Amino acid sequence: MTTQTHAGGTTQRRAALVGTGLIGGSVGLALRSLGWHVTGTDEDATVLARAVEVGAVDATGVDPDAELTVVATPVSTVAQLARQALERGGVVTDVGSVKAPVVADVAHPRFVGGHPMAGSEALGIDGARADLFSGATWAITPDDHTDPAALSLVHGAVRSMGAEVVTLDPLQHDRLVATVSHVPHLTAAALMGVAERRSAEHPALKRLAAGGFRDMTRIAAGDPRIWIDICNDNSEAICEVLDGLVESLSELRSIVEQGDSGELLERLEVAQVARRNLPAGAPDPEHLVEVRVEVTDRPGELASITTLATEADINVYDIEVVHAAGAAAATLILVVAERDAGALSSALELSGRRPGVQPLGEA
Amino acid sequence: MTTQTHAGGTTQRRAALVGTGLIGGSVGLALRSLGWHVTGTDEDATVLARAVEVGAVDATGVDPDAELTVVATPVSTVAQLARQALERGGVVTDVGSVKAPVVADVAHPRFVGGHPMAGSEALGIDGARADLFSGATWAITPDDHTDPAALSLVHGAVRSMGAEVVTLDPLQHDRLVATVSHVPHLTAAALMGVAERRSAEHPALKRLAAGGFRDMTRIAAGDPRIWIDICNDNSEAICEVLDGLVESLSELRSIVEQGDSGELLERLEVAQVARRNLPAGAPDPEHLVEVRVEVTDRPGELASITTLATEADINVYDIEVVHAAGAAAATLILVVAERDAGALSSALELSGRRPGVQPLGEA
Repeated sequence: MTTQTHAGGTTQRRAALVGTGLIGGSVGLALRSLGWHVTGTDEDATVLARAVEVGAVDATGVDPDAELTVVATPVSTVAQLARQALERGGVVTDVGSVKAPVVADVAHPRFVGGHPMAGSEALGIDGARADLFSGATWAITPDDHTDPAALSLVHGAVRSMGAEVVTLDPLQHDRLVATVSHVPHLTAAALMGVAERRSAEHPALKRLAAGGFRDMTRIAAGDPRIWIDICNDNSEAICEVLDGLVESLSELRSIVEQGDSGELLERLEVAQVARRNLPAGAPDPEHLVEVRVEVTDRPGELASITTLATEADINVYDIEVVHAAGAAAATLILVVAERDAGALSSALELSGRRPGVQPLGEA
Repeated sequence: MTTQTHAGGTTQRRAALVGTGLIGGSVGLALRSLGWHVTGTDEDATVLARAVEVGAVDATGVDPDAELTVVATPVSTVAQLARQALERGGVVTDVGSVKAPVVADVAHPRFVGGHPMAGSEALGIDGARADLFSGATWAITPDDHTDPAALSLVHGAVRSMGAEVVTLDPLQHDRLVATVSHVPHLTAAALMGVAERRSAEHPALKRLAAGGFRDMTRIAAGDPRIWIDICNDNSEAICEVLDGLVESLSELRSIVEQGDSGELLERLEVAQVARRNLPAGAPDPEHLVEVRVEVTDRPGELASITTLATEADINVYDIEVVHAAGAAAATLILVVAERDAGALSSALELSGRRPGVQPLGEA
């Protein structure tokens, strides 16, 4: 079979799941609700049976005709399972929390790394929901090897499940999630550990733990095993961010010890403003336009353009690659908010391309 | 006037608020709903007018007949305002986040330090609710100077507003809240600061910040100004806990760098178990009994017994002091869960007292 950017008329689109836990099961429910045919496998027969029961898959087993396979297993197993799926054909993506080692390991034009930022607590298949990704951010991490049609297919499937796509270089992704996910998790565990030791001296401590402390340690209640893989695979970025946090806490300690109220207020105000500016979920619906640009249809071309959009903080709502019959070049269509179109065009022009902007859906 | 343990028959109980913001206003709403007459003052006339509008006070101004004054102002102003209230008479308590400096500064038998663990975000009077303290923990911090009747009155008023009382030595309180509140707040600000710097390099960072990061930094969005007083007044305990946290994070860094999965798993599992054992709000209703013990009616006696209960992790639901006519001794009644009565009796016996246990409400 060949990959395809769009569903072919009346033919039902087919996806395969490798792993049918919380994330795999939710992908199955979401794609089935969109009309896809979904098959699934899981090394745990009980989990797979439950996936059938909750309607996350149409059938069990592998599907040689699947145009998209989603590997939703622990990070350490992804590369091997992705290679097996690639041998069967179609486009393959994964949902792991660390991307650079997996993308480098698989190194295949039809493999596009992915990472939905949702459902990190290990609830399993019973927590699966068709709307788990609605409004969530879903990172996808193409690289120089990525086939444009594969990237476009994954981008479209992710968007259709209601997620906001952020396209990132795999290494950049790993550095950013070290900051917003991995180190915060280790910090929650450290705070809980410090409190636990103090609690052994004075049991009333836990009764004093109000909402703020509960919020800050909530993620420490999740399954620790998934963090072993993550810390192994992303150790360099995690250590770098931990260094920054330890330095920042040590500075705060000096400021508190010296009673430097001015400096303390300044730091707390910076954090206050930053926290208040943190976007709350999906942005408002916006007036969308198309930015069109001619590209050579070679691996990496599309990845470099979409990561360029991400670097300019531009949300790409949809990607389409249109081939003129017999031509080596193709037209790339990026759907973005109207207010971002100018910035994206400028960035594309700076990279030597000649973009055009037009209303959505015109020929 | 004299302090009294119980409301006198048909006489309406009278309370005074100094400061009618979120906490003061909520105390007013709660006490008024329990039938108290509440007066209030606030240095901000607009806030005071709003307190009248929302029904948090019956009248504005001071009340020389108030049996209880609640000082609900920033920590740095509490001692002076508490002394003024003590001159007018009655029992005085406060709601500040740091207790040892204030209690030592006021040093009066009719002053009982207090700290409701609720509503830390600076919402002001418009966030005030009669049920703000329902199920919340409210620390009270008597010391060797505290009049037993004053402690009993504050304990009863706090309980009547639906809060769980934890009686603690003032210094012990400050050490514990450094662990569960002050250092977590500084940590949230540090995490947000680290993310903000990284975000300047890569704007996509904020779009990757999912629920866990949002939970961990939420408290950093609050008003920073209240933390200046807190860090000044509790700097020693805060620095000690920060040292422990920095050490713990540095150890985690080494573990991640060395790829020591066994040690990492162990630490994360300790945190997981501890977080899962964190009590979620108020405990279930329990079968309550009275533990009765003869005490000399001298300052500090009651404080030492109630903090002894807290150290044994026993929740005291109610305190009553019953005086036999003309006697120097009194009977102290501690209302506790039946399952805790044996442990409390043993602790009291070890301290040389002769407690008795009986069903609730018997003579």
